[in-house]
Amino acid sequence: MAASSSKTIVVQTTLGPQRFREMPNIDEYVEAHAERFEEELCQLLKIPSVSAAPEHQGDIRRACYWVADQFRRLGFVTEVVPTAGHPLVYAESPPVPDAATVLVYGHYDVQPPDPLEKWISPPFEPTERDGNLYARGATDDKGQMLTHIKSAEAWMEVEGRLPLNLKFVIEGEEEVGSAGLEAYLVEQAQRLACDCVVVSDGAQFAPGRPAITYGLRGIAYYELRLAGPKRDLHSGSFGGSVTNPANALARMLAALVDEQGRVRIPGFYDDVVPLTDRERKEFASLDFDEKAYFEEIGVRGATGEAGYTALERRWARPTCDVNGLWSGYQGEGAKTVLPATAGAKFSFRLVPNQDPEKISAALKPMLSELCPPGIEMELIDFHGSPGVLVPLDSPYIAAAARAIEHAFGRRPVFAREGGSIPIVTAFHETLEADVLLLGWGQDDDNTHSPNEKFCLADFHRGIKASARLWKELSEI
Amino acid sequence: MAASSSKTIVVQTTLGPQRFREMPNIDEYVEAHAERFEEELCQLLKIPSVSAAPEHQGDIRRACYWVADQFRRLGFVTEVVPTAGHPLVYAESPPVPDAATVLVYGHYDVQPPDPLEKWISPPFEPTERDGNLYARGATDDKGQMLTHIKSAEAWMEVEGRLPLNLKFVIEGEEEVGSAGLEAYLVEQAQRLACDCVVVSDGAQFAPGRPAITYGLRGIAYYELRLAGPKRDLHSGSFGGSVTNPANALARMLAALVDEQGRVRIPGFYDDVVPLTDRERKEFASLDFDEKAYFEEIGVRGATGEAGYTALERRWARPTCDVNGLWSGYQGEGAKTVLPATAGAKFSFRLVPNQDPEKISAALKPMLSELCPPGIEMELIDFHGSPGVLVPLDSPYIAAAARAIEHAFGRRPVFAREGGSIPIVTAFHETLEADVLLLGWGQDDDNTHSPNEKFCLADFHRGIKASARLWKELSEI
Repeated sequence: MAASSSKTIVVQTTLGPQRFREMPNIDEYVEAHAERFEEELCQLLKIPSVSAAPEHQGDIRRACYWVADQFRRLGFVTEVVPTAGHPLVYAESPPVPDAATVLVYGHYDVQPPDPLEKWISPPFEPTERDGNLYARGATDDKGQMLTHIKSAEAWMEVEGRLPLNLKFVIEGEEEVGSAGLEAYLVEQAQRLACDCVVVSDGAQFAPGRPAITYGLRGIAYYELRLAGPKRDLHSGSFGGSVTNPANALARMLAALVDEQGRVRIPGFYDDVVPLTDRERKEFASLDFDEKAYFEEIGVRGATGEAGYTALERRWARPTCDVNGLWSGYQGEGAKTVLPATAGAKFSFRLVPNQDPEKISAALKPMLSELCPPGIEMELIDFHGSPGVLVPLDSPYIAAAARAIEHAFGRRPVFAREGGSIPIVTAFHETLEADVLLLGWGQDDDNTHSPNEKFCLADFHRGIKASARLWKELSEI
Repeated sequence: MAASSSKTIVVQTTLGPQRFREMPNIDEYVEAHAERFEEELCQLLKIPSVSAAPEHQGDIRRACYWVADQFRRLGFVTEVVPTAGHPLVYAESPPVPDAATVLVYGHYDVQPPDPLEKWISPPFEPTERDGNLYARGATDDKGQMLTHIKSAEAWMEVEGRLPLNLKFVIEGEEEVGSAGLEAYLVEQAQRLACDCVVVSDGAQFAPGRPAITYGLRGIAYYELRLAGPKRDLHSGSFGGSVTNPANALARMLAALVDEQGRVRIPGFYDDVVPLTDRERKEFASLDFDEKAYFEEIGVRGATGEAGYTALERRWARPTCDVNGLWSGYQGEGAKTVLPATAGAKFSFRLVPNQDPEKISAALKPMLSELCPPGIEMELIDFHGSPGVLVPLDSPYIAAAARAIEHAFGRRPVFAREGGSIPIVTAFHETLEADVLLLGWGQDDDNTHSPNEKFCLADFHRGIKASARLWKELSEI
């Protein structure tokens, strides 16, 4: 395990496993070097590595080499790996035989900064205000990614080694789809083998409430195209005698969900891992303010699967959502058309252990059955992905919780997330490893918006938690 | 009845009612002058009176005065009436006290001729081929309208008078919405008072199968707008906990129609005049070829209200058709959006005696009830119009049938039409008069398309039928 297959072999002294009961020296190192860590973060933030903008190609390279240089200085085996798009950085710490192996994922590319005029300070001139560092990429993901590099540095400087094997994959295409990384993952799966994956590219539950996100929903996404008459017809002359594809679409979509908000596809719930009592208690203990939530969204009430709270519905129950609808006349006024076609995009959020392929296999005959005479149906099956769930009783979760409590002074919240993070699913599926989602950011960090920020206290707590995490994971 | 209220009083010899048992002289006149009638039709067809095109303003005037001149030559009280748009021509035959009064409607404006390159002969150079006269407006409506003017001429020339009172309203805005006429109708309702209205602006059932269209469906048209969250949400992070307006729309629209194809609005069928046995027999006798019909439309089957044939569903049963749908993402690929809004346009075709206002009054609470928590609903009620039905046992229908049989040598088909003709509804409602729809055209006349044509034999049969119609109506 953890033997380097890098082409550039760097001779390393290999060290056996060792116990690190307390880490006062490492915490002290992190505190003593806090100012320099911030300066280094600012160096990286000054590079406008906007992956979506061809004119920033050079900046992308600069940021990539800046990251690679961090690893080289630590004596890590380091590679800049070309992809069809922007290069990624792969690095490995000196091998520690018989110790656990952890893969850290992050990205050095950033979102475009537009609209520029809304920034209080320029996006690529990092500026501190009220304990926050404002810059594009501060939290997403340069600041969070750097916590794991700096924690590795602390270990290397204080102990001369890490307590386990670290592998880093830092890509430059996260904001544009991670195509290069996904190919790399499949190609290098053996080399990337690990016990767990650590990702810090998200937010805490609330200020002062650090979180471990232990579950993501998956997705199965479809487009349904219905074709009726070969041309639009006059709804007066023909209406009533011809099956209207827009009417048919409404019926078919409506039939997907029952009165209780449950999806009616046969077998849909068969593989659903139910919420445990512990989870429901954990969620309830979060004091999630439904009223404030709905107010923020701008609705006065809600529907959903009967028997579940809003948080349970978002995080841990499957759904059916229509994502798009189109047919006939969408302009001003009244046009008496019986449309030739109608279409919809719709998707199911899946929870573990639902299988998108099994859903597709049950959905197709159901829709065919619902499709009325006079309508030709085409179902496009977009690539689906299953949900991800790290069991709450996993030792990795327990280790991460201890590390976070050490650094943040508070037990983390155990949260799930309703969306998918395709790259997390890819790591989970390709490497068959549990993924620890340890977000050091805040919900109001303005990722993807003007005035992105990262709380500097969270930056430093993140480094300390990361350093502790290596110890905790090495002791499992 | 039929006293002229025109401001321009033309002194006329008033004549009492008189019986015209046979009309050999009138038929002979029509035959003798056939060539000149065609020449006159060609004169009118050469004027490109395209009502939608501002550059044809002058042509519109020329066509209008050409029509007015026809009436003046017959000694009719004739007015060119300005409207907010294009002028209309109003004319009255010399009064025949105690005789019936018939209002003839037609229009001198035409559709734009585009696409020009698809015309075999230029649209405003009338050309005869295979017994048809090809020109824009040949059948819609210059040729058909002229049949009634020429029949009046035959009476005036042969008998020196008409057997009843004729009023003509020939407008120049039929192809652009008839706004001026609708205002005129309301304003001059008293002056336009009549026993029945005759309109020839449509088609026969098939070649050699003349038709009387005795019923039109009405319409009630709505737009439903649903608003959920105040912005588009990520369907992963929020899906399941927020009511999705596109899902809600599908449910609400699906709920409008039951499994039997019947509209579920409370009381929807209360005022429906059922098909009589005679009507169902008449329809069945038409040898309507459902297979060929569906083939032409391009469908392999159909749904509709249970218990009715395709023709009955089109002509005489109410419907619910979705005319437009929109929500969320309509582009390529998959976008995981939980849309903020969703909307639909939908309409009910109504049959006599359904009342659009009553439908609206029942629809609104039904939709409100169906609208789920978390969705704000807005229902836009477009102007509706009721259906029109002339009882098959009406003496006007019988008179028209005799006139058509005289001229075409065949008993007419009694047909209904699934669409509305707003101006017919306006005549029916405003003047409270039965409307006789006597189309002399054919289904393949290419109205509104390149190579519009009118069969010259139908033109002459139309004149003969019209001349006979005045006699038949005068004898009721």
